[in-house]
Amino acid sequence: MQYTETLSVASHERNQFIDVTPEVNLVVARSGIREGMCYLYVPHTTAGITVNENADPSVPQDILERLSILAPREGRYRHTEGNADAHIKATLVGVSQTVPVSGGKLLLGTWQGVFFCEFDGPRRRKLVVRVVGEGVG
Amino acid sequence: MQYTETLSVASHERNQFIDVTPEVNLVVARSGIREGMCYLYVPHTTAGITVNENADPSVPQDILERLSILAPREGRYRHTEGNADAHIKATLVGVSQTVPVSGGKLLLGTWQGVFFCEFDGPRRRKLVVRVVGEGVG
Amino acid sequence: MQYTETLSVASHERNQFIDVTPEVNLVVARSGIREGMCYLYVPHTTAGITVNENADPSVPQDILERLSILAPREGRYRHTEGNADAHIKATLVGVSQTVPVSGGKLLLGTWQGVFFCEFDGPRRRKLVVRVVGEGVG
Repeated sequence: MQYTETLSVASHERNQFIDVTPEVNLVVARSGIREGMCYLYVPHTTAGITVNENADPSVPQDILERLSILAPREGRYRHTEGNADAHIKATLVGVSQTVPVSGGKLLLGTWQGVFFCEFDGPRRRKLVVRVVGEGVG
Repeated sequence: MQYTETLSVASHERNQFIDVTPEVNLVVARSGIREGMCYLYVPHTTAGITVNENADPSVPQDILERLSILAPREGRYRHTEGNADAHIKATLVGVSQTVPVSGGKLLLGTWQGVFFCEFDGPRRRKLVVRVVGEGVG
Repeated sequence: MQYTETLSVASHERNQFIDVTPEVNLVVARSGIREGMCYLYVPHTTAGITVNENADPSVPQDILERLSILAPREGRYRHTEGNADAHIKATLVGVSQTVPVSGGKLLLGTWQGVFFCEFDGPRRRKLVVRVVGEGVG
């Protein structure tokens, strides 16, 4: 059994972590799958996806600021579109995440949330959510 | 066919790579699955999971030391719990890994092992191991 | 339904991104699977796999150069084989990627390609491609 939805995510800053946990859990609920895997895939080259703390909003801020130290916007890059930093961040963070589904929802730890990671916004983005597993039936 | 176990992992240092390859292979064996995928998932926000060399113990040490240069403990962070560095490392390394299973065990390369990555220990941690695939039949 | 092939990848430089998108899509085609997941797995400890832009060749160059700033070859490492930097890069980039398959091919974004990431070449490498899902029926 597999079920797929493509979510639309709007970013409002150049660098932004957007908590998409509720939206992804709704897709899992609509899938009817109780036990399985949830695959999150970002079909972009200047954005990523991560799982980290969503209790204290300063955590995503700290991660974003550190990423901008590791891959500064103003660096010596060959790519001439001015977003080489965003491509680098996409590879460091990654464009796919795989989270187990149990009891019909994401098997996240107490403090975990799923973040869409914008590195070259503001833009309208897509997030592919595919759920594979066994339903109630 | 799917099979899940949650392993308990005890760390003894603040930053530590713990080779969990034997424990994960035992879960794969208990699953009865011969061909499929093994999903490793860390339900924490200050730890991660990676696959790297487990022959020379200096390799994990070098990786940990470099991560502490990239995300130093004493940085200018907003998060006030003193572990912002650990959250950053969790996102750089990642909290999920997906390894093929073949012939009833992890399809690892000759020098590869699976490491639970502690970034804010010592603590008792969980590692979710889910094996999905086809059994002996 | 699952189908596996191990591709052979030859690198020609110490650090090199090799676009393997066409080869991986051929494996997906040969699998006969229309809807499912494609798991890419690198069974090496000094190489990785990523998804990023394959339109402008300067993007992979920029990523490689930045990785060499983050993990310089000449650093203070314990590992005595002279490739500690390559091990660090493998953990930063990761050795596995999971890409959805739709309509019988990788569900990549417009600008995305799959890159095998060599960090200690030149060498002959392996890339495990496993496709799991539903066929044409």
